[in-house]
Amino acid sequence: MVRGVSRRGLLGGGAAAVGLAGAYGLGRVDDPATATAGAGEERYPFRGEHQAGIVTPAQDRLHFAAFDVTTDSRDELVALLQLWTAAAERMTGGGAAGPVGPVEGAADLPPDDTGEAIGLPASGLTLTFGFGPGLFRDAAGTDRFGLADRQPASLKDLPHFPGDQLVGRRTGGDLCVQACAQDPQVAVHAIRNLARIGFGTVAIRWSQLGFGRTSSTTAAQDTPRNLFGFKDGTANVRAEDDTALGEHVWVGADDDAAGSWLAGGSYLVARRINMTIETWDRQTLAEQEGIVGRAKGTGAPLSGGEETTPPDFAMPGSNDQPVIPVDAHVRVVHPSSNGGAQMLRRGYNFVDGTNELGGLDAGLFFLAFVRDPETDFVPVQLAMARSDALMEYLRTTGSALFAVPAGVGEGEHVGQALFT
Amino acid sequence: MVRGVSRRGLLGGGAAAVGLAGAYGLGRVDDPATATAGAGEERYPFRGEHQAGIVTPAQDRLHFAAFDVTTDSRDELVALLQLWTAAAERMTGGGAAGPVGPVEGAADLPPDDTGEAIGLPASGLTLTFGFGPGLFRDAAGTDRFGLADRQPASLKDLPHFPGDQLVGRRTGGDLCVQACAQDPQVAVHAIRNLARIGFGTVAIRWSQLGFGRTSSTTAAQDTPRNLFGFKDGTANVRAEDDTALGEHVWVGADDDAAGSWLAGGSYLVARRINMTIETWDRQTLAEQEGIVGRAKGTGAPLSGGEETTPPDFAMPGSNDQPVIPVDAHVRVVHPSSNGGAQMLRRGYNFVDGTNELGGLDAGLFFLAFVRDPETDFVPVQLAMARSDALMEYLRTTGSALFAVPAGVGEGEHVGQALFT
Ligand code: HEM
Ligand code: HEM
Repeated sequence: MVRGVSRRGLLGGGAAAVGLAGAYGLGRVDDPATATAGAGEERYPFRGEHQAGIVTPAQDRLHFAAFDVTTDSRDELVALLQLWTAAAERMTGGGAAGPVGPVEGAADLPPDDTGEAIGLPASGLTLTFGFGPGLFRDAAGTDRFGLADRQPASLKDLPHFPGDQLVGRRTGGDLCVQACAQDPQVAVHAIRNLARIGFGTVAIRWSQLGFGRTSSTTAAQDTPRNLFGFKDGTANVRAEDDTALGEHVWVGADDDAAGSWLAGGSYLVARRINMTIETWDRQTLAEQEGIVGRAKGTGAPLSGGEETTPPDFAMPGSNDQPVIPVDAHVRVVHPSSNGGAQMLRRGYNFVDGTNELGGLDAGLFFLAFVRDPETDFVPVQLAMARSDALMEYLRTTGSALFAVPAGVGEGEHVGQALFT
Repeated sequence: MVRGVSRRGLLGGGAAAVGLAGAYGLGRVDDPATATAGAGEERYPFRGEHQAGIVTPAQDRLHFAAFDVTTDSRDELVALLQLWTAAAERMTGGGAAGPVGPVEGAADLPPDDTGEAIGLPASGLTLTFGFGPGLFRDAAGTDRFGLADRQPASLKDLPHFPGDQLVGRRTGGDLCVQACAQDPQVAVHAIRNLARIGFGTVAIRWSQLGFGRTSSTTAAQDTPRNLFGFKDGTANVRAEDDTALGEHVWVGADDDAAGSWLAGGSYLVARRINMTIETWDRQTLAEQEGIVGRAKGTGAPLSGGEETTPPDFAMPGSNDQPVIPVDAHVRVVHPSSNGGAQMLRRGYNFVDGTNELGGLDAGLFFLAFVRDPETDFVPVQLAMARSDALMEYLRTTGSALFAVPAGVGEGEHVGQALFT
């Protein structure tokens, strides 16, 4: 069976595969928690209890897209989810988007894969699908697809937070796809082909490239750095922590009557946060560390220890202040300051050229998976807006919330439980 | 001497280096032509006969920035070039931007490195500097820096080509820096720190991230693919071809009287070319291959053979047409169609979110190094505009030309010959 590897262009119009980069054998299907990065051969199963791309070890690169559904036909929407499921399973397995392949088909037809990933291995690609509030009720309140009575109570537009400067073109969306991979060409290829397959049914509303991960989602991963130069993702809900995942990431069967189809899924909060890095760079090291609450070099809390040492918020510092300032980010957003709220953060650094002021249009594309945004995200974001010293250096320019259904079972399509 | 490795944060505020990703020993300084990619440890010497980043094996990722000079002081401009030289030498060697480092300095000072590359190896970083026409005469014709009589004849704004839809915010610039690396975080870190160092003297005019190379510049490199799904960079001027480099890439000592300081340097043409990939994806495989003139799978010319087989433009096809169509890209831009014109292409794929039409703002950030744009680039671009079938799928939204001085000798700063 050759179809699964047609992305590699092995059939190359009948010609030899000579010169095709990476046209070697199939990669391994590893246990998500233990796959090692590097060679590009790692591969994550598309089907499973939960969607991949959540507890999967955070890959290095991201392409994220939000789509508007442009049809009013429920059948067309379901047909698209079926096509997307098949394409996603093929691509995450290292194959082409379509069953034929980029160059294996008839010359007088458009290829069913766009070809830029020929020769590239699976590269740890995961594709994670989500449903926005607009799928249940559009802006005018219309129930386009007969789904209104299944809208989970927490799936609604996020409140406007103080400091938000949202740009319409970067906000909202009826559907989303998060593509993460070790190779950006593979992530871009996946989104581009899903958009191509959806032509006439969906249109891309916005999309975001992330060039570098800012979190680790397994204990084995190194902690990367954000564009403020600090380690990011140290205190995260991780793949190994079943208790925290059950309490703060996976939606429970009884969480929501209307949203019972979402059991085993999660909510995905997406926030495009511009960082005023030029201003940040003029702050002293002590100021920067006080704002974050951690040492810039090691990532250890200012109360001491190593990166993973829990912060001691009570430890007194000089001049009557605690050593971790009262407005330090890690204090303000810490579970202990927010009734135990926790989230699985999975964001990415971005640079999108230049802003009007001659600075870099750069920042953090914040992604977090939570069991319920009302309890695990909104209060934390409100606390930040109210009293976080970091806020002075942030402008949130995009925002969206999606319900991410549970994993796709054999023979099923993405989000099938919502439509049955 | 620890300074050279301070980017790695080994001094980490006195704390142990535990948990620092990649905080291992120094990388190798390899011969540019033979360094192997992958581990991130490859390193290219900053000083040499030519600037690195031209014949250097094309790295996977790009961050390109064009700057406006905001001072009228020649001394400040020279001082900046001196600071940039020192910072570039440190960063390409795997070190921090400043002599102290991101976390090694006094707590009551802003760090002289922004820190997001702590722990990351050199990652093959090259920094290539260029001078735009505006450095010699500004838009009003003023000779701001006493350089007007040294402006090379070919260093002027590129003509407006048919089909150009240039956006001011993506065009021109007094200075440019091309940062290429295997790790985008390293390339972004470099540009960001050069901008920080230049604060008050220069401001970023535009910047462009490229996520994937579209050329190979040495014989040993695999040919990557562009977003039309085709191999790109097959027929390129390469590091091994001294004759072609001498004739078509390096400026000769006698090329230009006013521009004699540019001997051993090159010209860099930058064109941000949007590709209408959604339209492209609806063309048949045969149409796509006819437009390019090569097979999509193997990259071989339609006249047959392998990827590196020279195209046979005379070979007849069916219905009285040559097998490589008369308007095929490879025919139109081929040296044999353009009086022998050749260039060293070194472009990158980009995706910058979404355009107004719900498509991806995606394309090719075309970069080419030529000995003289008047002979090696402009005629080819004009031929393309006139008769290339590819043009229907392209919109050029940014354009710039820079003179790239020769390599930096010991004790010198970037472009020193221009100022002496
Ligand atoms: C550009 C914006 C942001 C930056 C630069 C940033 C940076 C950081 C840094 C450096 C840390 C400490 C290292 C770690 O434990 O990961 C951290 C922790 C954290 N951040 Fe942020 N953050 C940003 C936005 C947000 C937002 C919007 C939220 C949620 C509303 C958030 C929630 C958290 C949480 C929950 C922690 C872990 C706190 C703990 O348990 O110790 N952050 N962030
Ligand atoms: C998005 C725009 C472009 C795309 C997608 C594109 C694509 C390609 C492809 C697929 C090839 C064949 C493989 C190879 O030899 O590299 C090629 C070759 C070439 N292209 Fe382009 N190209 C673009 C723009 C340009 C521009 C603007 C120029 C210069 C004005 C140019 C000059 C060349 C040259 C000189 C060759 C080699 C021809 C030969 O010697 O056989 N290309 N291009």
